[in-house]
Amino acid sequence: MSTLYTSKYINHKHVNIDDAFWNPILKLVGEEVLPYQWEVLNARVPGIEKSHAIQNLRIAAGDATGDFYGFVFQDSDVAKWLEAVGFYLQKHKNEALEKIADEVIELISRAQMPDGYLDTYFQIKEPHKRWTNLYECHELYVAGHLIEAGVAYYEATGKSKILEVCCKMADHLVKMFGEEEGKIKGYPGHQEIELALVKLYNVTQREEYLNLARFFITERGKEPNYFVIEWETTRNKMTHWGNHPCGKPDLKYNQAHQPIYDQQVAVGHAVRAMYMYTGMADVAALTNDDKLLQACQTLWDNVTKKQMYITGGVGSNVHGESFSFDYDLPNDTMYCETCASIGLIFFAQRLQQIIPNSEYADIIEKCLYNIVLGSISADGKRYFYVNPLEVDPISSKLDSRKHHVKPERQPWFSCACCPPNVVRLLTSLGNYIYTSNDKEIYLHQYISSDLIYKIKDTDVKITQQGSYLEDGKMHITLSLPTPAEFTLALRIPKWAKQAIIKINGEEIKYSNYLVDGYVKLTRVWNDQDTISIKFALGIIIMESHPFVKYNTGKVCVMRGPLVYCLEEVDNGKNLAGLSLDITKPLHYHQDGRIGYIIGNGYRLTLTGWDGMLYRPLMQTEESCELRFVPYHTWGNRGVGEMMVWIRKH
Amino acid sequence: MSTLYTSKYINHKHVNIDDAFWNPILKLVGEEVLPYQWEVLNARVPGIEKSHAIQNLRIAAGDATGDFYGFVFQDSDVAKWLEAVGFYLQKHKNEALEKIADEVIELISRAQMPDGYLDTYFQIKEPHKRWTNLYECHELYVAGHLIEAGVAYYEATGKSKILEVCCKMADHLVKMFGEEEGKIKGYPGHQEIELALVKLYNVTQREEYLNLARFFITERGKEPNYFVIEWETTRNKMTHWGNHPCGKPDLKYNQAHQPIYDQQVAVGHAVRAMYMYTGMADVAALTNDDKLLQACQTLWDNVTKKQMYITGGVGSNVHGESFSFDYDLPNDTMYCETCASIGLIFFAQRLQQIIPNSEYADIIEKCLYNIVLGSISADGKRYFYVNPLEVDPISSKLDSRKHHVKPERQPWFSCACCPPNVVRLLTSLGNYIYTSNDKEIYLHQYISSDLIYKIKDTDVKITQQGSYLEDGKMHITLSLPTPAEFTLALRIPKWAKQAIIKINGEEIKYSNYLVDGYVKLTRVWNDQDTISIKFALGIIIMESHPFVKYNTGKVCVMRGPLVYCLEEVDNGKNLAGLSLDITKPLHYHQDGRIGYIIGNGYRLTLTGWDGMLYRPLMQTEESCELRFVPYHTWGNRGVGEMMVWIRKH
Repeated sequence: MSTLYTSKYINHKHVNIDDAFWNPILKLVGEEVLPYQWEVLNARVPGIEKSHAIQNLRIAAGDATGDFYGFVFQDSDVAKWLEAVGFYLQKHKNEALEKIADEVIELISRAQMPDGYLDTYFQIKEPHKRWTNLYECHELYVAGHLIEAGVAYYEATGKSKILEVCCKMADHLVKMFGEEEGKIKGYPGHQEIELALVKLYNVTQREEYLNLARFFITERGKEPNYFVIEWETTRNKMTHWGNHPCGKPDLKYNQAHQPIYDQQVAVGHAVRAMYMYTGMADVAALTNDDKLLQACQTLWDNVTKKQMYITGGVGSNVHGESFSFDYDLPNDTMYCETCASIGLIFFAQRLQQIIPNSEYADIIEKCLYNIVLGSISADGKRYFYVNPLEVDPISSKLDSRKHHVKPERQPWFSCACCPPNVVRLLTSLGNYIYTSNDKEIYLHQYISSDLIYKIKDTDVKITQQGSYLEDGKMHITLSLPTPAEFTLALRIPKWAKQAIIKINGEEIKYSNYLVDGYVKLTRVWNDQDTISIKFALGIIIMESHPFVKYNTGKVCVMRGPLVYCLEEVDNGKNLAGLSLDITKPLHYHQDGRIGYIIGNGYRLTLTGWDGMLYRPLMQTEESCELRFVPYHTWGNRGVGEMMVWIRKH
Repeated sequence: MSTLYTSKYINHKHVNIDDAFWNPILKLVGEEVLPYQWEVLNARVPGIEKSHAIQNLRIAAGDATGDFYGFVFQDSDVAKWLEAVGFYLQKHKNEALEKIADEVIELISRAQMPDGYLDTYFQIKEPHKRWTNLYECHELYVAGHLIEAGVAYYEATGKSKILEVCCKMADHLVKMFGEEEGKIKGYPGHQEIELALVKLYNVTQREEYLNLARFFITERGKEPNYFVIEWETTRNKMTHWGNHPCGKPDLKYNQAHQPIYDQQVAVGHAVRAMYMYTGMADVAALTNDDKLLQACQTLWDNVTKKQMYITGGVGSNVHGESFSFDYDLPNDTMYCETCASIGLIFFAQRLQQIIPNSEYADIIEKCLYNIVLGSISADGKRYFYVNPLEVDPISSKLDSRKHHVKPERQPWFSCACCPPNVVRLLTSLGNYIYTSNDKEIYLHQYISSDLIYKIKDTDVKITQQGSYLEDGKMHITLSLPTPAEFTLALRIPKWAKQAIIKINGEEIKYSNYLVDGYVKLTRVWNDQDTISIKFALGIIIMESHPFVKYNTGKVCVMRGPLVYCLEEVDNGKNLAGLSLDITKPLHYHQDGRIGYIIGNGYRLTLTGWDGMLYRPLMQTEESCELRFVPYHTWGNRGVGEMMVWIRKH
């Protein structure tokens, strides 16, 4: 069957990252964070939110007795961790970790019911309520994460045990859900299974998995609405959350308010939306569904051009962890869940395989260098769930509208979706660098690395080396056994106002080759051909669309993909009293791996304010130096205020 | 017994208001609003929130059958309306209204239980639960409002029937509550009874009422905490709201977290706080309690110097309709309940009788001309409960954080505390103009009127006439049968940077006579002496304390006591995109009773923004004219955006 793919992602098996910026992070994740999270999942880290996720599996498997503990989706924490291990083992030998993973898989396998069902909450607590509350109860979400884990681990090790568990579970789903008489016409309350089934289809080529993914997507939002019927029938108008009577389900909350073909505006829970859009793009590509792709593009445009923070954060309302509405982007009460930006990366990665346009890679870069990196502490053991653009620790403590906005990363969460999500993303970073088709290789992300890949039957090695974040320079070397003609498409990041590109030392007029944000270099490449790139990596003062009312009169400092922010530790208390003098130059300073920016500004002073709350305008302020640090580094030097958007002076 | 009063308020029986600005409002309230609200209370106005308040009384009295409907404090709507009628009848003959009121009183009297108890919710629905849930159930609040109504109506008509009902009820309270063995050691969940008992004491001179008010105040917040004990015992850890198990009571919510002598910061529900502070000041004055007065002053300073909006609004958090914390004054998510500012007026009025300082009258003026007047529509039949400083109708509709912020006044509310509260305040406006002691008359509010009053055995008439709001001019004429020596203390409003004061045409150097914000003119006054005052009534651009983060870089336009705002109807959409050029003059234009102000500013334009959310700073803006209208007039010309604080350019 033909597909809509124009270039497919190159699996990170072919990519070896060796990057001065990324190496310490990836080493930390593999060597520190994966073992740490394993300890957490086993409830062996004292003084933090209790996980119980492994214990739930033990109880379901009959290895232990006791009650289920945690959220109805607690299993997914284990699955995401296992998926991260799979990604890690795809690139690294680690027998100890593999042994632990094999034991977990063994445990999962024994916990699975004979019919393939697997969800420890229902197995332990409410076996009679299976599939009766799709709206609230995450069974399909949990299944989806296990499938993703299974595929990653299978691809890492070739061991089929976990894949068999996943297929058995998926076969059960195929038996239970679908259009056919006697099957449930439902779909997940929390989307995720759709993209997972596509992964399982890709590795097994079993059409029924793709068909079920497509069913879940196309059935969604049809009238009469399944969730309303479910609420009236199998749910008895009761809610899982507290087990008391409840009102009609909010269909917008999980994007079931209308058929997905008709959805034009991102609404509801942001993570649900992102996972669903990703699955939609997958299914559109594989089933050649142009109309579905169109829906994806419309939603992409709405999200990225009307509802996204400059950091790549999405979900501007804490209520329902949800999208708000066009241009409504408050900086201090938003949600911007880490998982939502990871979902946005997934969505972008799917679209960039279908539509050759650099905007997808631009957004992946934005999310990666700001939200994803910012969500994890320098030591890898503390995490942000919510990623604010403005924090005042006093407000977080005293203002009930901001209790969700933590001024410091947390060691774990009762709802622990984000920490293992970050880890699975970082352990698969190499998957986001290249895509290719039979005659083109797209370079999307500038990360020093080797790609070893066969194109047109030629084994090529593409080595990226450089200091992209530092000075915008990358040097690319091609190694080929014999000359070969193909296209190398290099992304020009949106932030780069200009670039100098030289092939074998000779500058080319790159704009002549620029197509949809990529410089497409088609030629017969020879061994040791080099391309040197220098992007103009200046400090850029950014402004928001005038409809973003929270940002009018304010600016944000960026350099390359990095959003910068002000912290109290550098700039003193009451960051809101600061303004940036935009007429004066800002200066960048490199400081090890990380840089900072110094600007000139003004600080409101307390002169003459004794015992007053309002007064005739006097504007008592003094000039001051402002220090901006990359957003992703904030909160690593003690608790204090942080602010991205600053008033311009 | 000696008291702390330095000057007592002069009852509006002595005051006849005849003011070009106020006359139409007061006429509207008496002739349109009181009858309208009577219809509402009888559920005879279709298409609005159902009241059922009168019907509840009928059911309790045995005149009708049926269920109680409404909130547990539904009775208080009738009481506040009746109190307003009382105030109105103190100044106007209106036989029709008096007849209705007499019938209501008759009904109330028959609804009262033989033991004096009166609360239709408990009488109809849960007679066995009387006094078991003071924390949530408002019985003492309802009692308080009935007492206030009774006192006002008795003072208006001399008819004792309602006063007898009140005394019978108060006697019941005296029997039930107090330190003595066997009595309940509790106090109200919603304060109000304290100030009401003081009013009843003032009219009856029965010490037990004052003592009970004092008990309610001084017992509050003592350890072990009554509300915690109640929750554990008579409440069985259940909540009235939904009748399900609940957690420990939030003691800060109703200011029971510590003894009131120790309270230094306003916390919790703003209306509760204001009514309590008012009662505290009453009791402090009457019982000569300096320490209690000190607590009042500390709380006053906290409220007005750290937690009050420039409009006089208080309560910056919708959650719990509560105070937030010092300097936390968001403009678009606040609460600023109308009742809270009315409570602040009460508190100020009590303090100004104890402490001769103009700050109390300044705040009364601020609340009156902005929040109180703004809360009622031009036709008197629609009301704001929440009084925002910034509104966008789209946000009110789509942003769950702002659903409580209505962009238009509402005809009624399920919780209808505000509409009758405004009416009782306006019908008693004359009570706020003067205070006096045996040798001084303080003029606090400049409202054209006659005062006919006896001081030092001389009948004086003080006539204020002028156009205070228009041009800052007032002309005062004294009429006396014989010359008399006394002090006339004239408030210099805080907003008036200067004033010209002439006695009998001769200018005085008023600063020589200025004490605590009042020009104290002590002399032998003669018949037809005149004082002419001209306050410098300029447009003043105001700024907020730098810690008010929502207002940094912004200004507010005021003229006299009036805060001005921008409306969409005058200035187009996206008010947040406007800025005021503070280097250019602003101009005032009188337009009938109301003025407006024209300024120069800039508007962010949409030039070059197609399909973008962020871009390098270009600052595309165009100059424009800005039109400011008094805050209290907003929302009378259709639904649209409104904004008080504007960015300065």
